[in-house]
Amino acid sequence: MKKILVIGAGLSSSYLIKYLTSQALQNNWQVTVADSDKEVAGQKINGAANAFAIPLNANNTDDINQAVSTHDIVISMLPPFMHIAIAKACIMHKKHLVTASYVSEEMHQLHGEALRAGVLLLNECGLDPGIDHLSAMKLIDGIKKEGGTIDAFKSFCGGLIAPEYDDNPWNYKFTWNPRNVVLAGQATAKYLEHNELKFIPPQRIFIQTEPVHVAGYGDYESYANRDSLGYIAPYGIETAHTVLRGTLRKKGYSNAWNGLVKLGLTDDSFIIHDAGQLTYRSWLSAFTPGTGIHALEKRVCDFLNINRNDDLFKKLHWLGLFSEEKIAMNEASPAAILQHLLQQKWKLQKGELDMIVMHHEIEATINEEKRKISSSLVVKGEDEVLTAMAKTVGLPMAIACKLILTDKITARGVHIPISAEFYDPILEELEQFGVKFEEREVDLS
Amino acid sequence: MKKILVIGAGLSSSYLIKYLTSQALQNNWQVTVADSDKEVAGQKINGAANAFAIPLNANNTDDINQAVSTHDIVISMLPPFMHIAIAKACIMHKKHLVTASYVSEEMHQLHGEALRAGVLLLNECGLDPGIDHLSAMKLIDGIKKEGGTIDAFKSFCGGLIAPEYDDNPWNYKFTWNPRNVVLAGQATAKYLEHNELKFIPPQRIFIQTEPVHVAGYGDYESYANRDSLGYIAPYGIETAHTVLRGTLRKKGYSNAWNGLVKLGLTDDSFIIHDAGQLTYRSWLSAFTPGTGIHALEKRVCDFLNINRNDDLFKKLHWLGLFSEEKIAMNEASPAAILQHLLQQKWKLQKGELDMIVMHHEIEATINEEKRKISSSLVVKGEDEVLTAMAKTVGLPMAIACKLILTDKITARGVHIPISAEFYDPILEELEQFGVKFEEREVDLS
Repeated sequence: MKKILVIGAGLSSSYLIKYLTSQALQNNWQVTVADSDKEVAGQKINGAANAFAIPLNANNTDDINQAVSTHDIVISMLPPFMHIAIAKACIMHKKHLVTASYVSEEMHQLHGEALRAGVLLLNECGLDPGIDHLSAMKLIDGIKKEGGTIDAFKSFCGGLIAPEYDDNPWNYKFTWNPRNVVLAGQATAKYLEHNELKFIPPQRIFIQTEPVHVAGYGDYESYANRDSLGYIAPYGIETAHTVLRGTLRKKGYSNAWNGLVKLGLTDDSFIIHDAGQLTYRSWLSAFTPGTGIHALEKRVCDFLNINRNDDLFKKLHWLGLFSEEKIAMNEASPAAILQHLLQQKWKLQKGELDMIVMHHEIEATINEEKRKISSSLVVKGEDEVLTAMAKTVGLPMAIACKLILTDKITARGVHIPISAEFYDPILEELEQFGVKFEEREVDLS
Repeated sequence: MKKILVIGAGLSSSYLIKYLTSQALQNNWQVTVADSDKEVAGQKINGAANAFAIPLNANNTDDINQAVSTHDIVISMLPPFMHIAIAKACIMHKKHLVTASYVSEEMHQLHGEALRAGVLLLNECGLDPGIDHLSAMKLIDGIKKEGGTIDAFKSFCGGLIAPEYDDNPWNYKFTWNPRNVVLAGQATAKYLEHNELKFIPPQRIFIQTEPVHVAGYGDYESYANRDSLGYIAPYGIETAHTVLRGTLRKKGYSNAWNGLVKLGLTDDSFIIHDAGQLTYRSWLSAFTPGTGIHALEKRVCDFLNINRNDDLFKKLHWLGLFSEEKIAMNEASPAAILQHLLQQKWKLQKGELDMIVMHHEIEATINEEKRKISSSLVVKGEDEVLTAMAKTVGLPMAIACKLILTDKITARGVHIPISAEFYDPILEELEQFGVKFEEREVDLS
């Protein structure tokens, strides 16, 4: 019997735990779900056979060692900064580890130790990062096998609301960590364009967007992710003149979000004292040049160089930024106040489903012919718990876990899933769950 | 004999040490100048009678205690974060302390202990903060004594180049810490305008400037300081509808600096790897929308919506941003690269003098009459060592030290110099050194 330890039973673990527990009997697995709140872990396993819930204090090294030492593989769903303690315990007890988080510098440093211990520390094996690596590398390696060279690589991903429930002017609802959405784009973005290094500072990230058309799913736009340059070497696409990764939103979102940025409402670097004394209107007025709260609508329009019929004005108005409602927080940053407001407005309602869109665009020269290939993935949530986000983050980890336990994956050390050993079997099984990319040849004329 | 300990013998201590050593004999003082580099301390005292140089490791608590315990008063010229250890030693050994730094939260917490020990921990007693408090409070208290109420308070200060040596298109040279100049305006500014709370986010700080005319010295402009609201209570100006503090530059500086901000060149939050591979031109190109380094001048003009005859373009060009010169740093933030370039361009040359400008504008109602009073200070440096900055930072501390030792200042606990006990005698003696405000009645029509 192989023993699997899942640490963290939050919302994002739902699909992962469902997959593992539903296959536990047939695979002769024991699945242990550990959480600081044992009851939450118990709800997630929902009485499945061979599955157990345990309480775990992930800040306590002894508790971690005890839990890790009695299992064969660990899947950590903890926040990224907590993975290192788990990884060290995995090395000490010679157990494998799977996470969906970016490889931190500290994690990177563990490669040698992990190799010597004969264990795999597999990271970036969720959706983004995760399915992006798997699908991009399958495409890239396929082109190279044909003798082709990569000329340009663009990759986009967004967690969105399914079109049936897309009923607000922003065409957006929260389907994932709201704080990350509010703080997005607050670092300079780096990418490569026509062989030139490109930087976009925070105040321009939501202006310098690019349109992305996903056949069958309509028009999106993308704002640049923080670091696209770091993918050139691991992907082996040094021949590409353009490398860009971005986040997808429905058309018009970025321009409106840029309005919030220009006003200063996304600032997380200072606390507004006694914010509860302000209304949303007086708060907005404080950030708008000029004075006179009665003229606020005009001042905002003047500042943003729009009129009241503009989509941007309608989006700001719809959020309630002009309302006389008191702010329900006292000591909070502008970003925290904005998040609080957005969480009311952008709440996924009961019965509403989310949707994941991932889209790659690759330009290549194959047999001296210039070609452009797109590959798109659209996944809708199954219900409010088994969301598209939980599914696409959890399944690659769960499948990787199975492949490691059955020795189909034999890599050791610190890895991200960019080789065929990972992408072939994981993508194959993902298709059985409806997680399937559609490839298209794009007309270059 | 009273024993004075000066900790830190850097450039900014020159005037302070000159004042103390030149008066040591007549006042029966012993002046000890402590620095991590004893030689530097020795150069500053320059063989003066009753003056000694000692080496001091300000990171070593035992060394601090030893030095503090054998003196009567301490003047700390260390960086702000190092004051707390000195302040605690002063409390333990019942010695007074004078600094030119803002009262940190930790310093504020020491008030009770300092009171019980019977010592004064006097902070914000340099130029800005320092002379601004002294001069503003004398004005404010004067108006209140006449039965007046304060309607508006604005205060501006800048460390500039003296007009005779103002020979570059930016009308600016470094006369103080270059890093602080490059990182200025990177936090949201807070102030009060016509009874409304106002915030200016970083990307607008150099746009929302205001013109400041200093009679006899010409036209300046001011960008808002980080926090003007914190001065309302200590100054007792709760009746004011407008409270704003700002930094003075010559007209046109802020608009040009805003160009650097828009481009993204002042970002200090990420490191450019292998920056030494770039020229200033390719570095600028990376931050400018579009591609094509040959068309960089046009791209920059298009992005900033200017043409090549524009002052802003001339300023950027003069800095060497379009040059093919290699960047002489390898791992550096954009802000660090910009600072390195500016330190070559904005260097105070041998024989050139700096200049301090401070300017208050107060609106008040006195005997039912609306009045506006301005008060301006202009100080030029004496030479490259006895700069206006070193003079106006050092003299208030030195004079306060003398007043404390002669019991003319009797406050105990943590203080900033806002009461008559401080401002009357310090301003009076400052005048003997040519540090004298000119008050004017401003025509309100």
